[in-house]
Amino acid sequence: MAKLNHHYQKLSGSYLFPEIEKRILALKAKSPQASILNLGVGDATTPLFPTVIAALKQASHEMGERETFRGYGPSEGYLFLREAIAKVDYQNKISPDEIFIADGANTDISNLQELFCTENKVAIPDPAYPVYIDINVMAGRTRPLMKTGKYGGVIYLPCTKENGFQPQPPSIHADIIYLCSPHNPTGLAMDRELLTRWVNYAKEHEAVILFDGAYEAFVTSDAPRSIYEIEGAKEVAVEVRSFSKSANFTGLRCSYTVIPHELKIRDAGAIHSLHTLWKRRTDTKSNGVSYPIQRAAAALYTPEGQEQMKASVKSYGERAKLLRDGLSEIGYTVYGGIDSPYVWCQTPPKVNSWTFFDFLLENIHVATLPGQGFGKEGDGYIRFSAFAPRPVIDECLIRFKNLA
Amino acid sequence: MAKLNHHYQKLSGSYLFPEIEKRILALKAKSPQASILNLGVGDATTPLFPTVIAALKQASHEMGERETFRGYGPSEGYLFLREAIAKVDYQNKISPDEIFIADGANTDISNLQELFCTENKVAIPDPAYPVYIDINVMAGRTRPLMKTGKYGGVIYLPCTKENGFQPQPPSIHADIIYLCSPHNPTGLAMDRELLTRWVNYAKEHEAVILFDGAYEAFVTSDAPRSIYEIEGAKEVAVEVRSFSKSANFTGLRCSYTVIPHELKIRDAGAIHSLHTLWKRRTDTKSNGVSYPIQRAAAALYTPEGQEQMKASVKSYGERAKLLRDGLSEIGYTVYGGIDSPYVWCQTPPKVNSWTFFDFLLENIHVATLPGQGFGKEGDGYIRFSAFAPRPVIDECLIRFKNLA
Repeated sequence: MAKLNHHYQKLSGSYLFPEIEKRILALKAKSPQASILNLGVGDATTPLFPTVIAALKQASHEMGERETFRGYGPSEGYLFLREAIAKVDYQNKISPDEIFIADGANTDISNLQELFCTENKVAIPDPAYPVYIDINVMAGRTRPLMKTGKYGGVIYLPCTKENGFQPQPPSIHADIIYLCSPHNPTGLAMDRELLTRWVNYAKEHEAVILFDGAYEAFVTSDAPRSIYEIEGAKEVAVEVRSFSKSANFTGLRCSYTVIPHELKIRDAGAIHSLHTLWKRRTDTKSNGVSYPIQRAAAALYTPEGQEQMKASVKSYGERAKLLRDGLSEIGYTVYGGIDSPYVWCQTPPKVNSWTFFDFLLENIHVATLPGQGFGKEGDGYIRFSAFAPRPVIDECLIRFKNLA
Repeated sequence: MAKLNHHYQKLSGSYLFPEIEKRILALKAKSPQASILNLGVGDATTPLFPTVIAALKQASHEMGERETFRGYGPSEGYLFLREAIAKVDYQNKISPDEIFIADGANTDISNLQELFCTENKVAIPDPAYPVYIDINVMAGRTRPLMKTGKYGGVIYLPCTKENGFQPQPPSIHADIIYLCSPHNPTGLAMDRELLTRWVNYAKEHEAVILFDGAYEAFVTSDAPRSIYEIEGAKEVAVEVRSFSKSANFTGLRCSYTVIPHELKIRDAGAIHSLHTLWKRRTDTKSNGVSYPIQRAAAALYTPEGQEQMKASVKSYGERAKLLRDGLSEIGYTVYGGIDSPYVWCQTPPKVNSWTFFDFLLENIHVATLPGQGFGKEGDGYIRFSAFAPRPVIDECLIRFKNLA
């Protein structure tokens, strides 16, 4: 009799985003006339850049010609893309050989934990992107859900008003640490001092930091955009980045992960290279990313691609500022929106985040994301995404004004 | 201190295909003039079909326009593609809702095992596509490698000359069964009678069959192309299919997996739907397949797409026959090549498969795949891929003749 992975039964309800989608569809069914403004899911709304489209079409053309057709590519991705990333994103301080191309930051974040056994103590910011906790629940690295709404055996790193929404190294021991900066959902980036303390913590505890840099392109302050700006980080940190938000690739799917050769794990009396293990996994379980998609990503590293990407990121940033300032003027207490396309907004006193989410959806037809969907400490907040087109953001602010 | 997944240390050496690549590169370094004929890795060599290229370009164009741009798609894939698959490949006997789109059969085969706990007894054909065993080693579902070259705790299903290379239901209990038909590497399809016995075995043992149908398009005999042609299979079998071989998508990346709603797992006193669990996993760990790639796959279901696909498969089939007949004429004992693009060829007496592989590469510059790379029982055989272009196959046969 086939026996299931029982850990799936520990998961609390359905995954956040389909649940949101369900509630939006329910409203649509109830009020077909409603003009719903979607400031929920952080999905790109700007079309792909002209250089990207040209590269996609060119690569598609190549795939139809005998001389230029390509079959299986390297599982870690084509060198042309890894070289461009190393040069432009890391000024060659990371070598192409340390970069792995994937079809999404989510994919790699979900899979990296497989390299570690279930006995590791995992530290996860609260609130955070729900995948961090869910994949560790599925893998059996947590105990069941407690009455508090938290999973047993997990070190939650509170990101609250009291600590400026900045996850602090804990006083107890952790083995694997998820960090995201600029942080989703709070929209705040960690500064150099805090990241340095995290790198030092990881060294002291021989822990590994899985650093999610999906929003690095949005940093406008002097916060580090890469964890490798911190001395010694190569020995303790993996960095995952995505083209989803910086280049509107949410529907095209491409990302990359950096695993420095310096990252060694001392275990069972031997020293292991995480890079070697990940390469073995990638060779076995993946056949690489679609060739045209990799060409599309490489086009982002041309001067035109870089310019178009910067313009797109800047435009989202302006919308985030608009949202932040607009909500603030109306009287809401807001955070984020400076180094990130997300604005983290306090709910009215004593209104929990799901209630406020439902209230806004029902009454002004504005979809946001409830902070509770990102963890217990997210209660009392909702997240706005500034990926929505400018007219949607303007209209959203008008509806909020009328509500006030 | 971060602790590794120790099971990775049980893996025997590197993954097969990079190892082959390494040996080919070594020959190239030693003999730069050598004209190497690659009949090893089963990689497509025919360019993508005109309908596919047109769909790719059209979808790329859409992604650059505000009105038609698409961000995140459904994690299980777009309905337009799932509907086409259900209709054309399954005459609507499978519903679109039971189909999940992925970026490769390899990806889904690697991930499906996550839904089951480590205590399951796994049955795997020997020889077989090496991923089946490697992923179960990584997950800790096996004991260490034994001196015999086999992993402890695994039920190997021998595919040998004695049983016509057909994996038979074992006399002992298995929980999870990997089957591949037409089989890689032997190139032989299972007949209805054998598949029926497997379905009955799975029902009796409440086991799950993970059926790899990557080569179904190549069936020319009356062997079943889908396990669902067998009565009751929906209650016990998952079917994985790929566009890699049938439509030359090895570099484009698209596949699908069928999980029927009827497939229930009785476990810990409750009945669970495997479909629900897989949906939860997919929602959490994947953001779906690139939109242009899904449009490219959907183009295969137009009348022109079907025609071009059939012509491509037929052409590979003719090459397989050529190889099979040619090698046979020279005096080799060969199998497969009728329902599959692979020819399974016996090595000369007392020559093991790696030795013969090295000999052929060194002496006539023909790359094949050594049977041992697919399991212990693969020794004594090498695999030829008929995906090579026709002139390569002709030249290969000439070199073999000269060798004889």
